[in-house]
Amino acid sequence: MRVKKKDIFFQTLENMAEAVVQAADYFAEKVSNFNDVEAFAKEMKAFENQCDNYTHTIIIELNKTFITPIERDDIMNLTTTLDDVLDGLEATASRFYMYHLDEPDEHIVKFAEILRNSAYEIQKAIRLLSQKKLLAIREHTIRLNDLENQGDELLRIAIKELFVKVTDPIELIKKKEIYERLETTTDACEHVANMLESIIMRNS
Amino acid sequence: MRVKKKDIFFQTLENMAEAVVQAADYFAEKVSNFNDVEAFAKEMKAFENQCDNYTHTIIIELNKTFITPIERDDIMNLTTTLDDVLDGLEATASRFYMYHLDEPDEHIVKFAEILRNSAYEIQKAIRLLSQKKLLAIREHTIRLNDLENQGDELLRIAIKELFVKVTDPIELIKKKEIYERLETTTDACEHVANMLESIIMRNS
Amino acid sequence: MRVKKKDIFFQTLENMAEAVVQAADYFAEKVSNFNDVEAFAKEMKAFENQCDNYTHTIIIELNKTFITPIERDDIMNLTTTLDDVLDGLEATASRFYMYHLDEPDEHIVKFAEILRNSAYEIQKAIRLLSQKKLLAIREHTIRLNDLENQGDELLRIAIKELFVKVTDPIELIKKKEIYERLETTTDACEHVANMLESIIMRNS
Repeated sequence: MRVKKKDIFFQTLENMAEAVVQAADYFAEKVSNFNDVEAFAKEMKAFENQCDNYTHTIIIELNKTFITPIERDDIMNLTTTLDDVLDGLEATASRFYMYHLDEPDEHIVKFAEILRNSAYEIQKAIRLLSQKKLLAIREHTIRLNDLENQGDELLRIAIKELFVKVTDPIELIKKKEIYERLETTTDACEHVANMLESIIMRNS
Repeated sequence: MRVKKKDIFFQTLENMAEAVVQAADYFAEKVSNFNDVEAFAKEMKAFENQCDNYTHTIIIELNKTFITPIERDDIMNLTTTLDDVLDGLEATASRFYMYHLDEPDEHIVKFAEILRNSAYEIQKAIRLLSQKKLLAIREHTIRLNDLENQGDELLRIAIKELFVKVTDPIELIKKKEIYERLETTTDACEHVANMLESIIMRNS
Repeated sequence: MRVKKKDIFFQTLENMAEAVVQAADYFAEKVSNFNDVEAFAKEMKAFENQCDNYTHTIIIELNKTFITPIERDDIMNLTTTLDDVLDGLEATASRFYMYHLDEPDEHIVKFAEILRNSAYEIQKAIRLLSQKKLLAIREHTIRLNDLENQGDELLRIAIKELFVKVTDPIELIKKKEIYERLETTTDACEHVANMLESIIMRNS
C-alpha cells in the first residue's frame, strides 16, 4: 500500500502555518513575563528566517512546476501573507529589544492572545485547504475577521489610555509603536483570511 | 418602454464614490469646528463600514459573473483604491478621538478641503467611467494629481512649522501623525486616478 | 553597417538605474557634510521627478507595444520597484529639510554608503538584464540581499543607541524617522533584487 505523497505546495503552506503558530505561542508566553528580551528577539528572528526558507521553497517549486493544485497566484499570495504575519511578530519583538522594554503591559498581553488565537485559526484553515475542504474554511476566516476587529478595538483603548496616562514622551513613543505594530500584525492575519475567502469563492 | 438596468459593478463603484464624497464632506465640515470628537469618529466609522459592504458586493458579484464591463482586475483594483480613501479618512478621524484633539488647526482644515475636492473629482471620474466616456475622465485624473501635489506641499509646510513652533513633544507626535495620515489619504486619491488612467489607456 | 537600436524598455530601465545611481551618489556625498539642506532636498526632488518621467514613458510604451522583450508585468513591477528606491531617497532628504537636521551622524553616513553600493549593484544587474545575461544577474541580487541585511543590522544598532543616548524626545523623533526611512529604502533595493530573481527563474 502506498501512502500518497502530500503536494509540496500544501505541505509547505502547512509548514508555514505551523511556524506561525509556534512563533505566536512563544511570543504570547514571553511577553507576559520577560526575563531576557535579547534572547526573545533572537528566537523570533529564527522563526522569521525559517518562514523565509519556506517562502523560498514555494518560489523555487512554482518555477519548476507546470500544474499546481490551486492557481499559482493564489499560492504566491497566500505565502506572502503568511510571511507578513511572521514579519510583524518579529519586527515587534525586535522593538522590545531595541527599546529596552521588559516590563509587563496588559494591552500587549491581550494583543499577544489575539495573535495566538489568530495563528491557530490560520493553521486550521490552511489544513482544510490542503484537504480541499474549502467550505469548512469559512468558519475560520470569520473568526479571523472577528479577531482583527478585537485588535482594532484594543488599539483604540490602548492608545487612548497611553495619551492620558503616560507623560514621558519617550515612553509614549515606544509603547505607541509596539501597539501599532501588534495591530498591524492582526491585520496581516486578516489578509490571510481574505486570500482564503477569495480562493474559496473561485473554487467552489 | 424599458429603462436599462445599470450594470451592478458600475452602480456599486458609483455608490462607493458617493460614500467617499459624503465622508469627505462630513470630515471637512467637522474638522473646522469640533463639538463632539467621539461622535465624529463614530460617524466616520459608519461611512467606512458602508464602503466595506460595497467592497463585499463587488467581490461576490465578480465571483458569480462571467462577463464584466471592464476587466475583472480593474474593477477589483478600483474598489480597493476607493476603499483605501475611506480607510484613510476613518483612521485619521479615529486619531482625533484617541488623541483628544478638538482644537481647530488651519493645516488640517486645508487638508480637509483638498480631500473634499479630491472626493468630488473621484465621483465625476467614476460617473464618466460608468457612462463609458473614457477620454473625458482624464481632466479629473489631472486634477487629482494636482490635488495630491498640493497635499504634498502642505505636508512639507505643516511639518516644518510644527517642528519650529511646537515644543511639547506629545503635542508634536499627535499633530505629526494626523498631518501624515491626511497626506497619505491624498495619495490614496491619486491611486484612484492612476487606476483610472491605466483603464483609459488600455480601453481607448 | 547598422547599429541595432536598443529596446525602449531596456533603455528606459537603464536610464532609471542611472538616475538611482546619481541620486544615491549625490545623497551619500551630501549627508556627510551638509552646507545647504534646502538645496539638497530640492536636488533630490529633481531626481525623483526625472524617475517619474521614466515611469511615465514605460507606461505609455507598454500601452502601445504588442510584443515586449520580457513579460509586461515584469517590466511594470521592475519600474515600480526602481521608482520606490528614488521615492525613499527623496522622502528621507525632504525630512532633513523639514526637521532642520544638518548635523553629521555616523549612522546616516553608513546608511548612505549601503544605499550607494546598492544603487551600483542595481545598475549592474539592470545592464545584464538588458544584455540578456540573466544568470550573471544573480551575483548582484545576492549582494543586494546582503546589503539589505547590513541595513537591518544598522537600524537595530542606531535605534538602540538613540534610545540610550538621546534624551530630547523631539531630537529622537527626527532621528528615528530618518533611520527608519533609510532602512525602508534598503528594503526597496532588495525588492528590485527579488523582482530580478523572479525574472531570472521564469526565463532561464
